Formats: sequence, C-alpha cells, structure tokens
Amino acid sequence: MSISQADKRLLEGTEDFKAVASELYSLVKDLPIISPHGHVDPLLILENKPFNNPSDLFIYHDHYITRMLHAQGYSMEKLGKSDNPDHREAWRILCSNSHIFAGTASGYWLDHQLYSLFQISEPLSASNADSMYDQISEKLLTAEFTPQELLKKFNLKFLATTDDPTDDLSAHKKIAELPNLSCKIVPTFRPDKYLDPRVENWAENVAKLLASAGKKEVNYSQFILALEERRAYFIEHGAVSTDHGVFEPFTFELSQSEASNFFDRALNGSLSVDESRLFAGHMLSEMARMSTNDGLVMTLHAGVYRNHSSITLDKFGRDTGHDIPVKVEFTQNLRPLLEKYGLNPRLNLILFCLDEPTVTREIAPLASFYPSVYVGAPWWFFDSPSGLRRHRETVTDIAGFYRGSGFIDDTRAFLSIQARHDLARRVDSGYLADLVISGRIDIEVAKKIAVDLVTAVPMNAFKL
Amino acid sequence: MSISQADKRLLEGTEDFKAVASELYSLVKDLPIISPHGHVDPLLILENKPFNNPSDLFIYHDHYITRMLHAQGYSMEKLGKSDNPDHREAWRILCSNSHIFAGTASGYWLDHQLYSLFQISEPLSASNADSMYDQISEKLLTAEFTPQELLKKFNLKFLATTDDPTDDLSAHKKIAELPNLSCKIVPTFRPDKYLDPRVENWAENVAKLLASAGKKEVNYSQFILALEERRAYFIEHGAVSTDHGVFEPFTFELSQSEASNFFDRALNGSLSVDESRLFAGHMLSEMARMSTNDGLVMTLHAGVYRNHSSITLDKFGRDTGHDIPVKVEFTQNLRPLLEKYGLNPRLNLILFCLDEPTVTREIAPLASFYPSVYVGAPWWFFDSPSGLRRHRETVTDIAGFYRGSGFIDDTRAFLSIQARHDLARRVDSGYLADLVISGRIDIEVAKKIAVDLVTAVPMNAFKL
Amino acid sequence: MSISQADKRLLEGTEDFKAVASELYSLVKDLPIISPHGHVDPLLILENKPFNNPSDLFIYHDHYITRMLHAQGYSMEKLGKSDNPDHREAWRILCSNSHIFAGTASGYWLDHQLYSLFQISEPLSASNADSMYDQISEKLLTAEFTPQELLKKFNLKFLATTDDPTDDLSAHKKIAELPNLSCKIVPTFRPDKYLDPRVENWAENVAKLLASAGKKEVNYSQFILALEERRAYFIEHGAVSTDHGVFEPFTFELSQSEASNFFDRALNGSLSVDESRLFAGHMLSEMARMSTNDGLVMTLHAGVYRNHSSITLDKFGRDTGHDIPVKVEFTQNLRPLLEKYGLNPRLNLILFCLDEPTVTREIAPLASFYPSVYVGAPWWFFDSPSGLRRHRETVTDIAGFYRGSGFIDDTRAFLSIQARHDLARRVDSGYLADLVISGRIDIEVAKKIAVDLVTAVPMNAFKL
Repeated sequence: MSISQADKRLLEGTEDFKAVASELYSLVKDLPIISPHGHVDPLLILENKPFNNPSDLFIYHDHYITRMLHAQGYSMEKLGKSDNPDHREAWRILCSNSHIFAGTASGYWLDHQLYSLFQISEPLSASNADSMYDQISEKLLTAEFTPQELLKKFNLKFLATTDDPTDDLSAHKKIAELPNLSCKIVPTFRPDKYLDPRVENWAENVAKLLASAGKKEVNYSQFILALEERRAYFIEHGAVSTDHGVFEPFTFELSQSEASNFFDRALNGSLSVDESRLFAGHMLSEMARMSTNDGLVMTLHAGVYRNHSSITLDKFGRDTGHDIPVKVEFTQNLRPLLEKYGLNPRLNLILFCLDEPTVTREIAPLASFYPSVYVGAPWWFFDSPSGLRRHRETVTDIAGFYRGSGFIDDTRAFLSIQARHDLARRVDSGYLADLVISGRIDIEVAKKIAVDLVTAVPMNAFKL
Repeated sequence: MSISQADKRLLEGTEDFKAVASELYSLVKDLPIISPHGHVDPLLILENKPFNNPSDLFIYHDHYITRMLHAQGYSMEKLGKSDNPDHREAWRILCSNSHIFAGTASGYWLDHQLYSLFQISEPLSASNADSMYDQISEKLLTAEFTPQELLKKFNLKFLATTDDPTDDLSAHKKIAELPNLSCKIVPTFRPDKYLDPRVENWAENVAKLLASAGKKEVNYSQFILALEERRAYFIEHGAVSTDHGVFEPFTFELSQSEASNFFDRALNGSLSVDESRLFAGHMLSEMARMSTNDGLVMTLHAGVYRNHSSITLDKFGRDTGHDIPVKVEFTQNLRPLLEKYGLNPRLNLILFCLDEPTVTREIAPLASFYPSVYVGAPWWFFDSPSGLRRHRETVTDIAGFYRGSGFIDDTRAFLSIQARHDLARRVDSGYLADLVISGRIDIEVAKKIAVDLVTAVPMNAFKL
Repeated sequence: MSISQADKRLLEGTEDFKAVASELYSLVKDLPIISPHGHVDPLLILENKPFNNPSDLFIYHDHYITRMLHAQGYSMEKLGKSDNPDHREAWRILCSNSHIFAGTASGYWLDHQLYSLFQISEPLSASNADSMYDQISEKLLTAEFTPQELLKKFNLKFLATTDDPTDDLSAHKKIAELPNLSCKIVPTFRPDKYLDPRVENWAENVAKLLASAGKKEVNYSQFILALEERRAYFIEHGAVSTDHGVFEPFTFELSQSEASNFFDRALNGSLSVDESRLFAGHMLSEMARMSTNDGLVMTLHAGVYRNHSSITLDKFGRDTGHDIPVKVEFTQNLRPLLEKYGLNPRLNLILFCLDEPTVTREIAPLASFYPSVYVGAPWWFFDSPSGLRRHRETVTDIAGFYRGSGFIDDTRAFLSIQARHDLARRVDSGYLADLVISGRIDIEVAKKIAVDLVTAVPMNAFKL
C-alpha cells in the first residue's frame, strides 16, 4: 500500500466512522510520547551511536521477531544468536518470510517503522531483501538516525528504563547532564531477584544488594534498610516507579520476627519452598508499604512461565522468545496487600497480566473500587491492534477510561516505540468514534478523553 | 447529543443495519417488562413515597456509581455513607466526574434515565450540577415520579424482589391487595445464610429459620421441613424462584444420616471447614430436590469474593462496591446435582457467573443438553452494551436464542430498570440485524426471536 | 432467503468489504477440500449405500442437533435413539423447532446443506416438514447422493478417518483398491484407551493390543513394541497422524524401569490413581518420541468431561451430546514433552481445546516459538461463524496465519463436511478483507494467505 494509505491505518470504515475517528486521531497524533515503563538500555541514549545494521535493529533485539522465525524452523544461530552472525543472511530470512508476520502486532510495527522512518511501503520479500538492506543501512549512518535525534523525531518527552537496584545509575547521571536532550530519562527499580528466595543465587544477590547500600551486617532489618535506601537513591535520580515480575501475584503478611527468621533460614538454605513463597509474598507487600512512604508507583507484571525451553536458555540465554503465559489470579492473591495498603492514597499499583479474561473479571473491578489500583495497558502479546481494541472494550465497560495506566510500550526495541504509541492512539480513536457513532458518548467528551488518554491518564497513574 | 439522537443509540451503522435493527427494535421497544429477578425493596412500592433527592436516587443506592467515585479518591462519607450526608455536595461530585462514566454501563443507564425521565440531554458537569439538581428535585416531587406511577410508565408487568426465608412477606401481602397496580410483584426465596455452616452466625440463623416455621426441635429433619414449609409459604405469596449466591457452585450428595450428623456437628461447632463445604454442597442439591417437588425455579449466582475490603465492610457495610469476581467452574461442581435432578422436567436451574469464558465453555454446553439448565443473562459487570453483545454472540453460537433466561436487571436501582431492559432490547435487535444482514438468519425468523426474547423466553425459564 | 442471497453469506458489509471479501472468497471457494482429521466411518465410503432417510442423515448421526432438541425436552427415543425410531416424527420435531437453531453453527450448516445439496431455501417449519421429508428422501435415492459421488461433488481430495490401533484396516485396504475414487482416504491412529490405566477395562485393552501385534509376552517393552508396530502398520496404510483425546494434556517422563514397574502394577490393579496419571502422562510423551522416529503428526484434543450424564450414557451410549468442556492448561502440562521433543524437527504437535482464552494465552505463544507446535483449528463448539472469527483474530495477532493446522471439520456428519469448510473459507476471506481495508495488510498478501490457508497450511501441519 502507499504511504498515504498507510497513514489511514485502522481509521477506515463507514463515512461516519472515518470522519469521527480521523478527527479524534488528529488531536493526539502529534502529542508528545510518555513512556513510563520499558526496557531501553540507557547506554543506547548516552553513547548515541548509530545502529549497526538492519538485522541488529529489527531481528536480534526483537524477540517477537526471533520467536516467529524460530518457529518456522530457522536456528537461533542463523537469527543472530552467535558470535559471528551473518547480518545480511538473517535479513534475507526475515524478508523471505515477511508473510508470516502478516496480521501480527510485530508485522504492524515493522511496516510502520519501514514506512515512517525509511519511506519503504512495498512488502519485504526475497527479491527485494538485498536492496532494502542497503537502503536501510545507508540511512542508519545518517545523523538523523542516532538515538538522541530519534528521541526528538519521536517527540518522546519521558522515558523510563528498567534497572537493577544495585546499579549505580552512572549512565542516568550522565544523561541528566546532557545539554539539549529533549526527553527526560529516568530509571525504574526492579528488585525481583532480591525478593524471592526461590530465585537462583538468591543469597549472592542479597549480599550484592547489601553491599550496594553499604550494609555490613546480614540480617532482615539491614536487608529492608538496604532496599529502602536503594529506592531513595533511585528517586534521587528521577525514578517514579518500581517494577515487579512474578509468576503469581501472591501477597502475604509475615510478622517482623517471622520475616526475620525466614530471611535467616533462606540464607542458610533451610527455608522450604512453601515458606519461600510466603516470604516472597511478604516482600511484595513490603514493597507496597515502602511505596506508601516514598511514593514510588508499583507496576506488577504477573503470570509468565519464563524460559520454557531449558535447552534454548542454556544455549542462547534469556529473552529468546520462549516465555509463555499462564493463568493468573489477583482477587485472592492481592487481598493481603490491599487489606493493608489498598485504601492508602500514597499507593499506586498498576496490574498487568497476559490472561485476558482476568483483566475484565478481576483487575477492572479492583481498579474501579480501590483508589490505589490501576488497570495496566495490554501487555506483550496483547498490545496488537485487536488486543488493544478488545482491552479497551472490555475494560471500559467496567472501569471507564480513567482507571488505566495509559499506553505502555514495555519494549527494548527502541525504534518501535513511536509505532506502538501511534497504534494505541489509532485504536483508541477508533473505539471512541464507535462510541460516538452508536450514541454512547458525546463528541466533545470523546475529544477530551482522546487527549486525556495520552496526557492526564498516564501522568496520573505514574504521578508525573 | 439530542434526545432524538439518543433514541437511536446502538441502532446506528450502515444503511442496511439501521433499517433492520430499527425494524426489530420497533417490535419490542414498547412491550411490557418482565423482571423475574432483582433487588427492589417491596416497601418502596408499598409506601409509594417520592424519592428524596437526586443523590439518593443516583448515587447512594447505586453502588456501581459509588465504587467508581470511590476509586477516584472520594470518601464513602462524601458519597453519602454517613449519618448526615450533604446531598448537593455528593451530586456535585458526580457531575464534575461525569467523564469517568463515559463508556461504562453505569454511564449509559444514567444518561438514559436523564433523557427519558427528565428530558436532560446535556452531559452533567461541574457547571450545570446545581441547576440539574434543582431540576431533578422538582420533578421527583411530582405525582408521576412515585414508584407506583413509574411502574406504569416503565410498563413493568412482573417484578420479583429478593427476600429472606423468614420474612413474613407482609409487604407483599399488602401490595397484592393494592387496587389498580399494573404490575405483579412477587417475592424470591433466598436461603444462602441458612445453607452454609461457614456463614457467620449460622447457628443463630438456623434457629431463626426453625422459629419462623414454628419448629420446636432442632435437628436436620426439622431443618429440611422448615425450608420446605417456608418455600411453600413463599409460593402461596406468588414466588416463582429461589436465588442462591455462592462463592463456588459446588454440589454434593450426603446420605440422610451423614447430613443429619453434619448438621448436629455444625451446630455444636465441631464440623471442619471441608465438611462444612460438603454440607453446603449437599444443601444446594437439596434445594434442587425441593424444586422438583414444588416447582420453584433455581437461580444460581456463583463466583464472587464478597466484601473484599474488610475496613470498608466494617465502616460502611455490605453492598458498597467491593465485591470482586473470581474464576468459577460448573462442569464438575454441578455434576452431583445434575446426575440426580438434571433430567427432571420439574427443575429449571438458571446459571450466572462473572467469568465470561466459563459461560461459553461450560454453561452454554450444559444448557444445550440438560433440559433443566438455562443460561443466565449477563450478570452485573457484564450487562453493559458490549458485554451483552459478547454474551449474545458467544452463547448463541452454541446454545441458540432459546436456552437463556431472558434479560435480568438484577438491580436495586429502581429507576434504572427500564433503561437496562431497553439496552438489552437494543443490543439484541442489533445482533439479530447483523445475523440477517450477513445471511445467517431470515428476517421473519429474526422478528419472531426479537419478540420471543422479551416474552416467551423469560416466561419459559421462570415458568410464568 | 434466496439461494443467491445464501451464496453471499458472511460476505456482506460495506461496499469496500464486499468487494475485497468476495474477491478473496472467489479464489478459494472451489479449491479441493483437505480433511486431515475427522470421524467418518470408512465403511460409509466403501459400501457406498444411499443414506436411509432425512432423520438418519441430519438428526441421528449429528449429536449437535440431538443435544439441542434434547434440551428442549424431547426424549432421546423420539430423537432416534431407539430400536425402532419413527423417522418422520423425528423429522417433524426438527422442523417444528428450527428456530432454536437460528444463530447456531448447527443451524448454519443445516441451512447450507439444504440449499446447496437439496435447493431448499425456505426455513423448515411444522407446516412444510412432511413435504421436505419427501423431497429430501427422494433425492437421497438418486445416484448423485451416494457417498462416493458426494466425495466428488464436495471436491474432497484427502479424508482421514479415526481408528482403533487394533483395527486391521481392511476397509481402508479395500477403499485403496477402488478404481476412480477421487479422494485419498487414510486411517488415523487413536490409542487413548491403551495409554491410560484409569480407562475402564484397560488391562483387557492392553491384551487386545498385544494380540493385534502378535505379542505373546505381557510386559512394558512388548507393549511399547506393539504400539510401534501398529503405528507402522497404520503408516503402511496411509496414516499421517495419531490422535489423542485427554481430560488434561499432562505429560511426564518416567525412567524405563519406573515405566515397566508402573505397567506391571497397573495390570495387577495396584497402581494408584496418581501413579496412573503419571503413567498416562509418560505414555503421551512416548507417543511424541515415536513420532520423532516414524514421523506421524500428533493431534491432541484436551479438556472435555466425557459423558457427563451417566443415566444418558447407560441408556443411550456415548456421543449423545453430553460431553462438556472444562478448563485446560498447556504451558506447564506439556513442558516435559516439549523439553524432550519440542525442538525436534520430526515432531508436529497440533493442540486443540475448548477453552478459548487458553488458545490465545498458551497455545498461540507455544506455537510461535516451538517449531513442533501448531495451533489447532477451532474445535467443536467453536467452529461456528463467530467462533472461527474470534479464533482468527486472537490467534493471528500472536502467531500469524502460518502456525495453524488449517481448518479441521472433525465431524462424523459426512454431509456437513463441505458446509463446514466453506464456512471457514468465508470467515477467513472476511477477516483478511478487514485487514486489507483497515490497512494492516496488502491485498496481494491477502490473496496469497487466503489460498495458503486451504492448501500449504494444512499440508505443512499434517506433512501431506
């Protein structure tokens, strides 16, 4: 399709629909992007080097793409997971398989990036692979394709990275000192591997955490203090949130002495698996307690079986496309935490999962009673055109437009950030247009909501 | 939007769609309302007093509205849960937050009531709050706004309330004697708190039940007899159904002697939690057995964690917006009951839950085999425009249009009854129109179904 | 509706939609049908007798129809489950209840068969029942209505039956020798009742299996050998796949000696239920191991509570409409199997369930990483117009169009095969048209995909 056609993506329909959806989209398409949760490496921004080549950009660092090609039978090595990848060959594999991405979210973003950044509107194919590779490679060396220039081009105003609590945040410090950077870049406190004794090398992790906070003694109260101090350090460097990735969103309340006892036994290896679960649940509650003191927003991502293929993990490491969702339960699991902190006006707790009915059944009802609970944007497999639309429909019915997190790109694929936010804006414009046309809301209300969804809503959820 | 636009709500689309949907809707829009399950207080009808004020009407007695405003950070006290509520201030809160209801079911009903009862079509806002308050208050004092007049205006022909088994039904008796009442008003037998030993104060409840049936001895057979007699008493006063609200739809079959033993031990506090669950499951089966004798229809509402926030419960009581859905399972849980009574032509068992995929996966298949099982209308969070539509689509595929309960408003918000039924009629007209246009059904069949859905279908399910 | 209107079913919409959807449908509507999994009796083809009467054709052998009429209160006897059924009376029951099928998948297929095979386009009703009965009966006696002629008419090129491992496949041998048969007909290896010691009469089943393979000794290694040899025998006679129907897709890996010990104890009745589950899980993994050797594709159908009503089972046997779906979990259950064989290029494992969100949450992500895993077509209750559409939307977002099985009719209702495949082609044409119109894919890509979905996709999944 032509680029002018591409500009109308998801805004087509009846004449009525086109008129209203386009009007709403025109209000938001150029508004700045707020990206309060994601996985961009701060060094990418700081070092500001040109991207290496098209394969590095679109394949190696996008495990959505990798997994699909892997499922077609291509080896991880051919897809770049090797010491000496053949970039051009990897690119040819992508191009000759472009049809497998048709209709997927990854395909949508890829097309968007190609036409908006590289003015490429013809479908990738085996026959144009080499010329596309050359065309893109050439552009990547131009000044406008450095990460800092792209931040401007994307109109990105706020970008959060995800960081280890022991990180000294030196990259963030240097970024903060950059002149003329158009975007605020802040760290996010991600303490998973310190909170759950079932994690591999937990004792070592704890030792590292204590050291990073200058604690000499190894006990529960120093552990808590270390976490609090590291959070404060992150806040000093701009952090607005903590992020928690868990298999289940289980929370629990141990007494101070139980927690201390569990901590000691976890360190000496005598804590059972069941007790470890209780401790991890307790620590998640502790994070909420700390948030009610220091104000950091909590984002909670639950329900993934990480690294499903141990062979792939062993050979190619994490984030290689085999994290598989599982069912998840919030109503009962979160109750201990919410009983204690759910009505506290200092807490903002944003919930994400990959179990669509659970969002409607549990998260939306929780978020439309507890002032602390927010419905996270569709995560991962569900930030597709249809997934975003289903989420908007099912959640809005119950919780309206104002209990959400705003769109979250949650990506390590820097170049796709603009494509993802633009997609969400199109889907929301379309959903609002449908509500207007079917007589459910007034056009003036729709206009306010369209703008709020990319401004007031994320700013409120993330306390910006 | 204007009132004439509002009249077309959910009936807009392509020209083809508008024509068919409007034709179907015109056949049903003025048909009488049958409301066989709900929570209107019979005293409201009997006493026939004017409504107090707009806040009382739209906020205090509608915990869908309360929960949304509470989630925005307003205290329950400000929302009317206090000894001396500031009605006008509560109303101002609602009006200045009207955008948070945009796109929700509550927002839809609220708009409908405002335009159809009060001829108000402009969106509520901070600036018109006071004038709206005055305008509505004035109308509420007019004769046409008494509950009995509204029954006529709504064209309500059948209304079931929900009542305690020990209730003497004096209100219903007096209502039955009212001259010129256009609507039949009947009680519903709701025995939850007598059937499950895990309920607080179960022993006291049982004593009260036995007393209400004039039973002197406290044992299992007298307990069963008391239930049977109270059911008979309800039937004498017009009841057509029993209602059961459970966390899980677990059923079980104890022998007579086991049941008797469990009953005694439950009373003396020596029944374990697991045994109590078995007893509750047994009593649900017993309710089915009684239904095969006395013909009362069973409605079963499963899968809610009631009163999730204990602080809110303690301070403000039940029905304050924090009942949160959980997953639910019917196929295995209901099997003991269905093995015994599922093929009995005297049993009608209508199943409701808040777990959308379970309706499609389990309830619809059960209802399209067992003559006793019916698919309950979308309950609570799912009686929204989109929820009703999804239900219609997913259930009809499997079970057709004739295994449902008909629309159930299930509300304590009296003024919203007409809005809710009208919404269901619009959604069904639209769904049928889509089937006609896509060539799946004939227009004449669609017309028959549209009418049956508000007449024959509920009358069959509730044996009216 | 007229037959020309019927031809446009599911292809109606805006002018844009009609044009694109019809163009795509025109490319596929006459392509041959590949039916790699179903339940047609090979004797039906071999004997090539005319069908008995309309009731036999549309009611007795279609338990989708039976269950719906049973739910309306008609006895199984009246619906043909008797020694001496009244065919005309059963047909009258169907006709006078045709409205209950409106909007269902069964209703859609029934209409399609009536208009495409019998040129009947008026809705069935009490008043036309007898004349329709005569009209259809007459046609059934004509030469064009023999099964072999219908194979040609349907343009069926490949049809797999489902067979017991001990079957001597004599029917298939004779079919293979038929001259001029336009369709390849092959058996499928369905070993459920030999793999799970919890199945009734498992020991007898095992004895029968060993005998069928000429094994004299009764032990685990002979059991495995018998399975391998019977698979080889099936392959010799054209089989391309094995089929597995399980309550849960649980897999497990026992050591050789454990498996041998479990086998012996299962035979002598001393294996516990939990151990039996482990053995069944182990045997499912063994099937995958054998597939990596002999290349048979595995289809796995999980999550059904079979024969829910024991009274109905006892009186009327299996496949009488009361198999009810349950929730199902793949991510964790399949992991042991996938750890061992999931990356093996010889394995194709196609997953089916009746739990819609699980398809999106678990199957699609698994299939878009593991080269061995494929997303099964919507099964059973979900191969309806709306079910097919929802599946296409939710799965494609995540896994694209190329990780599916192709459409599977999975039916014993021979006459409905063409109707079912045609429906899937219409739905896919419509979905692709929506993607084209909304700017998500190019029309040329859509054309390729439309054709691939009925050719390359099933041929790849089933290794044809």
